[in-house]
Amino acid sequence: MGSVTNMRQPERVAIIGAGVIGAAWAARWMLRGSDVRVYDPGLETERVVTEVTANARHSWERMGVAPLKEGSLTFAQSIGETANDVSLIQESVPEDVALKKKVLGQIEEAAPKSALIASSTSGLLPSELQEDMVNPERFLVGHPFNPVYLLPMVEVVGGQSTSADSISSAMHFYEIAGMKPLEVRVEIDAFIADRLLEAVWREALWLVDDGVATTQEIDDVIRFGFGLRWAQMGLFENYRIAGGEGGIKHFIQQFGPSLEWPWSKLTDTPDLTHELVERISAQSDEQSGHLTVRQLERIRDNNLVDILLALEGNSWGAGETVAGLRDTQSRSATPQEK
Amino acid sequence: MGSVTNMRQPERVAIIGAGVIGAAWAARWMLRGSDVRVYDPGLETERVVTEVTANARHSWERMGVAPLKEGSLTFAQSIGETANDVSLIQESVPEDVALKKKVLGQIEEAAPKSALIASSTSGLLPSELQEDMVNPERFLVGHPFNPVYLLPMVEVVGGQSTSADSISSAMHFYEIAGMKPLEVRVEIDAFIADRLLEAVWREALWLVDDGVATTQEIDDVIRFGFGLRWAQMGLFENYRIAGGEGGIKHFIQQFGPSLEWPWSKLTDTPDLTHELVERISAQSDEQSGHLTVRQLERIRDNNLVDILLALEGNSWGAGETVAGLRDTQSRSATPQEK
Repeated sequence: MGSVTNMRQPERVAIIGAGVIGAAWAARWMLRGSDVRVYDPGLETERVVTEVTANARHSWERMGVAPLKEGSLTFAQSIGETANDVSLIQESVPEDVALKKKVLGQIEEAAPKSALIASSTSGLLPSELQEDMVNPERFLVGHPFNPVYLLPMVEVVGGQSTSADSISSAMHFYEIAGMKPLEVRVEIDAFIADRLLEAVWREALWLVDDGVATTQEIDDVIRFGFGLRWAQMGLFENYRIAGGEGGIKHFIQQFGPSLEWPWSKLTDTPDLTHELVERISAQSDEQSGHLTVRQLERIRDNNLVDILLALEGNSWGAGETVAGLRDTQSRSATPQEK
Repeated sequence: MGSVTNMRQPERVAIIGAGVIGAAWAARWMLRGSDVRVYDPGLETERVVTEVTANARHSWERMGVAPLKEGSLTFAQSIGETANDVSLIQESVPEDVALKKKVLGQIEEAAPKSALIASSTSGLLPSELQEDMVNPERFLVGHPFNPVYLLPMVEVVGGQSTSADSISSAMHFYEIAGMKPLEVRVEIDAFIADRLLEAVWREALWLVDDGVATTQEIDDVIRFGFGLRWAQMGLFENYRIAGGEGGIKHFIQQFGPSLEWPWSKLTDTPDLTHELVERISAQSDEQSGHLTVRQLERIRDNNLVDILLALEGNSWGAGETVAGLRDTQSRSATPQEK
């Protein structure tokens, strides 16, 4: 495991599985100057990766951190050809335990013994994914957030067989990628972020299913309300402020009892009936159907970039990861005029 | 109810209850040029309102929408004296049904028959709050979000006796205040936002209680991850993008089954034991105790202002409410250099 703890920029990174997540990992590493090799059996892989990379490049130019020289991008024809001489392999195939285990086996056969192998799974347990591996100590989860080339968070989760060295190598690799890795210290289904997201998703489905609110109304409540808070402080820090001079204890004393009120649908989840899926789909079309997904992506990315720049200006939160990139990136662009 | 539908700026607004929320309502209306009269029996009312108003003024100056002339601020000695000649009364006393009903009775005795009466409750049902009122048709909920002088969302919820005229008057008043009112069409406990927030809060308490994550780690997962997304698009619009060209149906088909996985603590809530409250408090001190609440407020507000300006630059979401203010405000300041 010697060179896994190597603290240098990875020269070559392998991306196995290139949907929205894998393609964005490819873009992030290229923009950091690493050479990237991609494998995905899909027919549209080159188109998807090229489009996602164009979006990422636009955003990094807008942030003023586009590199003087991007890493290269190669499309390989097999897992073996992709993983055979890289120091980091990032697996992003669909969330299917059997499929992931099979792919990890193929990666392991081809990869150098020193390479770190990370899965992008948003909730499967690394202990389960690594159980058939020959060298499970160099496997872990590195769970990123869409769009991966802009959001800095990545949850790093080891399984029972993962070595401490592999965790620290992953933390370091992701820092090099300009990210904010968080070590999830206890291995639980869905880790931390998706536990919170699942809770919101379940409640939102109930609201739509019960006819209380449309997708547009739920989105508006978030983006004109608490979503603005959460872009820069999280749940607890905001509630610490809300408690005023009494602090978070005062807040909990005020707000705590409401946990016992019938304020959410605690006990089960709505069935994803055909009718509910159709309702969500129709409401979403009504809300955003006048824009293509590509247009929505560009709007989202421009907003994210400008929010990141705003936070960088205040030396706060995710803005500090941008400042870190700015310090270490060999740049070709200056920040765009706002 | 004639003059409730009056579409002009309210000359005078009464604020009953001036904690963090009431004080921020006062600040928002003063900054829009309405005269504000405040009543709160607390000993610290003048200090709190003065401090919150200073924060609000700083933020509106930073946004470049501070008014040429603020409305006046008066501290009254009773509810009667506060409500007797205003067109809008905003009640923000603690979340206690009996207390709120008593205060609403006193407001009604003093207020002009034409005045609109709104409660800031974050989840109590307007039908219950209005049941003892003589003129319940002019009562509704206007639930804002902290900090009220910056976050545009306000949930407008009528009870069984609320008139359609009152709903439309409230929508209009809040638009004048520079906000984004959302009519909650179905009267349910906790409305829309706090249903979502409660779901996250409950899950976060479990994560802390189980020792999976600290308050800092949970906050970081949010503000370096999905919180950045939610400042500008909500849940469904982001998932529409995540579904790629297959759209939101494709996303639900991928993500939907996970609802049946054991991904969150569905069935009950953690007891707020002394130990749990102490743990949260200690972790929060560790995370943010080096900053006072006033310092945290200023950091939060500067971040929010700059995020709002970034979104205004992109003519998107909450930025459009700032653009609306900029169009209609009689201004004294230009946007601060960033």
